[in-house]
Amino acid sequence: MVDLNCDLGEGFGVWQLTDDDALLDIVTSANVACGFHAGDPSTMRRVCDRAADRGVAVGAQVSYRDLAGFGRRYIAATYQQVRDDVLYQIGALAACCRPSSTRVRYVKPHGALYHACSTDPEHARAVIDAMRSYDDALVLLAAAGSAFLVQAQQAGVTTVAEGFADRAYRGDGTLVPRGEGGAVITDPATAAQQARAIAERHEVSTVDGSVVVVDARSICVHGDTPHAVPIARAVRAGLEAAGNALAPFA
Amino acid sequence: MVDLNCDLGEGFGVWQLTDDDALLDIVTSANVACGFHAGDPSTMRRVCDRAADRGVAVGAQVSYRDLAGFGRRYIAATYQQVRDDVLYQIGALAACCRPSSTRVRYVKPHGALYHACSTDPEHARAVIDAMRSYDDALVLLAAAGSAFLVQAQQAGVTTVAEGFADRAYRGDGTLVPRGEGGAVITDPATAAQQARAIAERHEVSTVDGSVVVVDARSICVHGDTPHAVPIARAVRAGLEAAGNALAPFA
Amino acid sequence: MVDLNCDLGEGFGVWQLTDDDALLDIVTSANVACGFHAGDPSTMRRVCDRAADRGVAVGAQVSYRDLAGFGRRYIAATYQQVRDDVLYQIGALAACCRPSSTRVRYVKPHGALYHACSTDPEHARAVIDAMRSYDDALVLLAAAGSAFLVQAQQAGVTTVAEGFADRAYRGDGTLVPRGEGGAVITDPATAAQQARAIAERHEVSTVDGSVVVVDARSICVHGDTPHAVPIARAVRAGLEAAGNALAPFA
Amino acid sequence: MVDLNCDLGEGFGVWQLTDDDALLDIVTSANVACGFHAGDPSTMRRVCDRAADRGVAVGAQVSYRDLAGFGRRYIAATYQQVRDDVLYQIGALAACCRPSSTRVRYVKPHGALYHACSTDPEHARAVIDAMRSYDDALVLLAAAGSAFLVQAQQAGVTTVAEGFADRAYRGDGTLVPRGEGGAVITDPATAAQQARAIAERHEVSTVDGSVVVVDARSICVHGDTPHAVPIARAVRAGLEAAGNALAPFA
Repeated sequence: MVDLNCDLGEGFGVWQLTDDDALLDIVTSANVACGFHAGDPSTMRRVCDRAADRGVAVGAQVSYRDLAGFGRRYIAATYQQVRDDVLYQIGALAACCRPSSTRVRYVKPHGALYHACSTDPEHARAVIDAMRSYDDALVLLAAAGSAFLVQAQQAGVTTVAEGFADRAYRGDGTLVPRGEGGAVITDPATAAQQARAIAERHEVSTVDGSVVVVDARSICVHGDTPHAVPIARAVRAGLEAAGNALAPFA
Repeated sequence: MVDLNCDLGEGFGVWQLTDDDALLDIVTSANVACGFHAGDPSTMRRVCDRAADRGVAVGAQVSYRDLAGFGRRYIAATYQQVRDDVLYQIGALAACCRPSSTRVRYVKPHGALYHACSTDPEHARAVIDAMRSYDDALVLLAAAGSAFLVQAQQAGVTTVAEGFADRAYRGDGTLVPRGEGGAVITDPATAAQQARAIAERHEVSTVDGSVVVVDARSICVHGDTPHAVPIARAVRAGLEAAGNALAPFA
Repeated sequence: MVDLNCDLGEGFGVWQLTDDDALLDIVTSANVACGFHAGDPSTMRRVCDRAADRGVAVGAQVSYRDLAGFGRRYIAATYQQVRDDVLYQIGALAACCRPSSTRVRYVKPHGALYHACSTDPEHARAVIDAMRSYDDALVLLAAAGSAFLVQAQQAGVTTVAEGFADRAYRGDGTLVPRGEGGAVITDPATAAQQARAIAERHEVSTVDGSVVVVDARSICVHGDTPHAVPIARAVRAGLEAAGNALAPFA
Repeated sequence: MVDLNCDLGEGFGVWQLTDDDALLDIVTSANVACGFHAGDPSTMRRVCDRAADRGVAVGAQVSYRDLAGFGRRYIAATYQQVRDDVLYQIGALAACCRPSSTRVRYVKPHGALYHACSTDPEHARAVIDAMRSYDDALVLLAAAGSAFLVQAQQAGVTTVAEGFADRAYRGDGTLVPRGEGGAVITDPATAAQQARAIAERHEVSTVDGSVVVVDARSICVHGDTPHAVPIARAVRAGLEAAGNALAPFA
């Protein structure tokens, strides 16, 4: 059983970034933007509604407050600011789920906050504490092998590890940074192959030519790239053709 | 039994507007700003925490999205935008209540949205529908005698009517608009007297010299005026001295 | 001599709405979003830079402060708020012009503010006063036959009238509202034909079958529609093929 | 000749932080917030107007885009984002100066950006490049002895060094961080004494008991503290009583 997750609802007002409807037909878990880096309330409601219709699990894609930077910039916020901003976002999304009779099952920080949670234990603790104060049953979705995942487990949070189908890995198991060449995998077949490697063998071939362990129960595909839909389709088709069953982890 | 409500948590980041701690010692219901006209998540959490400690009921003071205008400007938003913005705000506040083991009991729109709900049935319907889709048990707090109150009742929402201790009334039962002279009552004794008139006789003396019916179960005092705390204290003391018991309506 | 104007730079951060580079190769005047409904500073600088390179005139596309509503919602702002918000936006764009050695030549309000300026003389006066306090040489670009144009002329502002190539007109000379069917002309040939009718005969065929006068020196094509680029190309090609010279009015 | 500068206009909408009118009667240079951490356009215009009336020089207090954090949080923005955000803010303030027939004389980054400019040369370069692309005559106001000041001088920018009357210094010449005890001097007489030490002897007594060189032509007093006005008055009175003439540096 493998899960396929994707960032969705990342528009704001008139602006669209992701083809939410097409991607919701493919993935099993939707990381829904909660208004701080993207995601106006009407978009949030719409994504929750369609996710519920398709049996896709809804997660809160929480972020630093940064529409102008799309949450991709580290902000030296205090522990309290991060904690309360995350709590606020979870609650806002939870409300958007209610008319669709679904609920927030998990939390996945977005962008700079996602990365900071593995390098800044205070921000990680803030996210964890927000989750726990909201609902003990919330699951954390974070990178396989990350310090964040370990910190959350130690705090008693249920965690699910994810690997990336469409991002290149370095020999140390970290991702090639977005600015660098080859960071993003744009060929659907390559992404599908990497997804299978993660799902079936818990490993990925790196840009160094080595192989690293990626022990993940969920595969992430990105929704904000030009080839997002064909990549997601190829990843799902590749996984299913090889006999992997897809279902939400939550 | 009478309720005393006040808008609280109306700062944002470093900025403060209301003396939340002092007012929470006086009122029985706190209309907490939810981030759209005021109210950052840390302020929201702090107000909910202290409200819970004191047995003060928490309500969602929902608004148009307008920090620059403090929610005092009508925005020609669509039904859907208002509905989803309100739902988002209720959920965000609900999350801020959780660590304090309290919850959102009621909704009171703020500023321009409060007024629009009595003149623009679409915006009123949007607020009502957001409330119902969040939780059927949510109570609406709105002006005694307003069209909004009637529309909400007809939609099956439980309503509580409020009157104003510190705002002057006109002969037609509406408030003297804020821009006009004498709109705001700044003398604590006058406000206390008006509160008693509402609580005990369900009536108010107007600027025209007439008396109008204000059939209210809750008395509103404003938190954003220079004399907010002494006025609130005088109102409470006046009500109690005359034998009126104060308690949250919710 | 006819001018071709288009709203540009209407993205924000990662979000894009208009194909600025393609449109800047076609139009002669760029209405650049100034940050209040769209337009982050880097986008603004980029559009100004490329406009300068191509000899395209830069205008300030000023708006109500409303990123979430893309400036399409009327806001009941005070005269002073509108005036100062407009002044702020003009100055911000003027600064973004400096590295490219160009400057703001004209002002064209956006969306709801554009419409309000013909129905709310206070908001119109606010825009006019902001323009005059910034620079007496600024030209106002507004709808042919609008009350706003008349009010600006009476205030001593130089005005240029515009007609729309890709919006349907009603018999009274106003546009078919965006929500209604047929409001937006999506066929390039039809838009090109309407542009020629405006440029050459100062008239437009309406949805009622009548013909109205549209006495305009500038033709507006919209940049935020799916077929914006082919429509703009067809309009320009049609005008040029018929011997109309295109140049900025400013 | 010594200059006295203060951060002003740091409210937003209904929220006020600084007593602008009282402080404008005392200082000689006003660092005016430009909308990114504080400062709505109407407040900006009002401060510029009153500064012009009193012969107070206007400077652009530019910031990271962060209303919620009041610009006090480092944001890992790109060089281009910082540069263009700063340019935008300078231009916006310049426009707000025009109705008052004054202009922006200098730039002083605010909060986290102020500090980052001495530790992150990319952000410093972004501010410097924005200033130069706007107007070569703009002066930079920054901390005496800071790396930022040196970098700006090397880039050909005219600089003015400032020292702090109301902030405690450490033995290495840096300020005691705001979070720590004793960081902010609240006694007017102590602040006045420190201001004279800077103005007359270019030195300050530190919390370590040592004396450090603070070679400054401008003295900064903070406007956002509870005792801002009495401190500023005491500083000015102390400087004048000792025969120091006060005037804007620009």
